[in-house]
Amino acid sequence: MRPKIYLFGDSITEESFGDGGWGASLANHFARTADVVLRGYSGYNTRWALKVIDKVFPAEESGGDAPLAVTVFFGANDACLPDRSAAFQHVPLDEYKKNLNSIVSFLKRRWPTTLIVLITPPPIDEDGRILCPFVEDNSGLPERTNESAGSYAKACLAVASDSQVFAVDIWTKMQQFPGWHKACLRDGLHPTPDGNKIVFEEVLEKLKEKGLSSENLPSDLPLLAEIDPNDPLKAFEN
Amino acid sequence: MRPKIYLFGDSITEESFGDGGWGASLANHFARTADVVLRGYSGYNTRWALKVIDKVFPAEESGGDAPLAVTVFFGANDACLPDRSAAFQHVPLDEYKKNLNSIVSFLKRRWPTTLIVLITPPPIDEDGRILCPFVEDNSGLPERTNESAGSYAKACLAVASDSQVFAVDIWTKMQQFPGWHKACLRDGLHPTPDGNKIVFEEVLEKLKEKGLSSENLPSDLPLLAEIDPNDPLKAFEN
Repeated sequence: MRPKIYLFGDSITEESFGDGGWGASLANHFARTADVVLRGYSGYNTRWALKVIDKVFPAEESGGDAPLAVTVFFGANDACLPDRSAAFQHVPLDEYKKNLNSIVSFLKRRWPTTLIVLITPPPIDEDGRILCPFVEDNSGLPERTNESAGSYAKACLAVASDSQVFAVDIWTKMQQFPGWHKACLRDGLHPTPDGNKIVFEEVLEKLKEKGLSSENLPSDLPLLAEIDPNDPLKAFEN
Repeated sequence: MRPKIYLFGDSITEESFGDGGWGASLANHFARTADVVLRGYSGYNTRWALKVIDKVFPAEESGGDAPLAVTVFFGANDACLPDRSAAFQHVPLDEYKKNLNSIVSFLKRRWPTTLIVLITPPPIDEDGRILCPFVEDNSGLPERTNESAGSYAKACLAVASDSQVFAVDIWTKMQQFPGWHKACLRDGLHPTPDGNKIVFEEVLEKLKEKGLSSENLPSDLPLLAEIDPNDPLKAFEN
């Protein structure tokens, strides 16, 4: 069977197979080489992720079935401010680092050879959050700020560096895009197609650094270009 | 673990996680309930599909791991004309029916409870095929015609009826769309986002007829709406 690539994270992962989504783009890239498996849980922070990680990655998937890679994309909810409408999702910065470390340790223990890619939370367009109908708050203040998201992004990079796994700094990358507030984020938090493209390209670049791309991985069954038009069935003899 | 939905077919399946693709849309719909597994093989006809079906659906996946559903989407290549540039992909109509029947029998034998959905080949925009740079032919004639695709679509529906499995008649449905030649097909054969939307909606409708939708299937882990903001960890106690 084909190897797997797991996408583990919050709503930005759960929604990643929507139009122009970064998860769908990865699945498309690996269409003949790997199964991209969606494990996104809307609203989850690292505290909740740790409560369920054993069910997300059950033990029978261990050993020979080690996935090629796992992306870990949490922090957007941890970074919710503790005194605003989404306080119940907030996780203090120190605990976020500890939790992220525990997630990495869990994955390393289960699959020592699997590539782990941490993804920082995205930047926040605070105006976009205030206008978002799903954010219930009478204060008129956003439940997330870009500054807070930035602290969690920095912590995520520190965890990756300390535990020697790859990281994608989406918080910084997106802010390099002209007009990123509206161009990259559709509601101040979740990526637009342009924002999704950045996530896809950055993640794929990290995977490629370890040789994980459709060009390098063996294809599942003969490709059309490998089938001789004069004797097509020959390709299927083995 | 989550149940699976397999998408088995040719390039129209292999490319179904591209922008606006019908496979990605299914994966998005089932984001918390089922894994949509891509098994598309560009250029394949039913003759080649039968040569590899044991590898596409290996035996260890049998028994308790029965998928919820399998879509079977072949015929576009079988319907290539036998005297034009893609003749090596052509499969005679009678053999196509026999092969499709064998695929259905294989799946029924392996997974008696799994929903099987046959999808007819799409219609052909012959002008679009002539202009397609991948179709090498000096004759100036398309390698596929809509009439031929229609015969294979009809045969596909007959197989579904005889073997009592579901079918989606994309050949007919797409031709009901205003300006379908260009609106639904980007190169005379492969669907545009609008064409993909038709495939997605038709397939989802069949799945829903058997209760297979994100509304009816159990969600993987607590949904955000089920988590009590005053005591979030309670949702993770069991």
